[in-house]
Amino acid sequence: MDINEKYFSNITIRERAIFEGAISMGALFHQFIGTPINKQSVASLEIAISKSLELQPAIEKVEVAIDLQKLDEAMSDFDYVSLSGEMLNVKIHSKVEDILAIIRMEFIEELNYPLMYVEEIME
Amino acid sequence: MDINEKYFSNITIRERAIFEGAISMGALFHQFIGTPINKQSVASLEIAISKSLELQPAIEKVEVAIDLQKLDEAMSDFDYVSLSGEMLNVKIHSKVEDILAIIRMEFIEELNYPLMYVEEIME
Amino acid sequence: MDINEKYFSNITIRERAIFEGAISMGALFHQFIGTPINKQSVASLEIAISKSLELQPAIEKVEVAIDLQKLDEAMSDFDYVSLSGEMLNVKIHSKVEDILAIIRMEFIEELNYPLMYVEEIME
Amino acid sequence: MDINEKYFSNITIRERAIFEGAISMGALFHQFIGTPINKQSVASLEIAISKSLELQPAIEKVEVAIDLQKLDEAMSDFDYVSLSGEMLNVKIHSKVEDILAIIRMEFIEELNYPLMYVEEIME
Repeated sequence: MDINEKYFSNITIRERAIFEGAISMGALFHQFIGTPINKQSVASLEIAISKSLELQPAIEKVEVAIDLQKLDEAMSDFDYVSLSGEMLNVKIHSKVEDILAIIRMEFIEELNYPLMYVEEIME
Repeated sequence: MDINEKYFSNITIRERAIFEGAISMGALFHQFIGTPINKQSVASLEIAISKSLELQPAIEKVEVAIDLQKLDEAMSDFDYVSLSGEMLNVKIHSKVEDILAIIRMEFIEELNYPLMYVEEIME
Repeated sequence: MDINEKYFSNITIRERAIFEGAISMGALFHQFIGTPINKQSVASLEIAISKSLELQPAIEKVEVAIDLQKLDEAMSDFDYVSLSGEMLNVKIHSKVEDILAIIRMEFIEELNYPLMYVEEIME
Repeated sequence: MDINEKYFSNITIRERAIFEGAISMGALFHQFIGTPINKQSVASLEIAISKSLELQPAIEKVEVAIDLQKLDEAMSDFDYVSLSGEMLNVKIHSKVEDILAIIRMEFIEELNYPLMYVEEIME
């Protein structure tokens, strides 16, 4: 079966790059939010998040930065917290043929919301 | 702040409809996979999935159908199972201005994979 | 196979009731944290959470109350938020033979932590 | 506040060790089921799972083994799959004062179910 022909011929290459990156960003947020975390575990979680999402179709690179100051501000008496959207800053590089879309998530204080948007498209 | 102007002026309306629908499909899968389920709880879970994802930007309607035969085939001795990708058939209607994108997820046996694709775009 | 004989003969009935209730409380938190929610979707999510966790071994009843004031305080500019531990107040009734354990989760401000504990055991 | 006095004086030390280990096992399953995985990402995911759950109260050590044969059997045409209960074999060491409880999860083919039980208690 030619998957591209059968399922993706109704959208452009650029749209496909955006589509695949957006899926992975939604996936990342809802898979890992809630994970127990503190400063000692940040690095291992960032690596696991990247390596798991990089397996998805078209995903070339996933850059995850967990905000240590936000982590510190949220800290509980048990010396860890649940990972939340406020702490996450992510770039997903999604490439289909020659088009690279960089999908971004960052917490926007003014909106009190972890906004996902298309940061850049390189054609 | 004009969010559309600041964050989304680099993509078309059609691309934005695809983008928002794709985020919600990735979110849906990774939020709810693993939920305990049997025939008695199917309806309440389908409703909660729809109502939660319909809150996300641009999402007009979320149609979720959990495959009862697949559910039955996966059944454990404890009379429930964990929701898995094989059981899910979903349509997400994402609308930005006058453009409606219908994002679909269905399990494709030939690929052994819950494929997400753009089923239709109405302009 | 006699599951109780093979896997649970090394603990008491009371310990088993605690064990099964604790599993379901950990499961509930980590399955549903992150779900998009606002006042309009609260009821459907509470029902789906209860009905799914009540499927697990020994679980007789799951009472979920999402705190509307906390929900309101966390609200974003997009009219929904991600479900977080601050908003959850849960009682899980776990019964093995004649022993009922009530497992509780509530957010303790003083600890900045969603504490899980055994609220009561009725023998 | 003396948390132990206030919230845990109604159960024994042994029960508390079982309780905390059971919470973490339920948490582990429902946090990480659904994560994209293949052979190349197994090690990083096992580490992140261990390091995150070891942060929870009383948890001394979390041993996670993802079954590579089961992973291979579930493989899709996209060279990765979603982590499922069939693939997980976990031991959680929960210690309260001098009592160590080892909580186990393993997939039991005969039950078609990822069973959680108390493997051993050392007093």
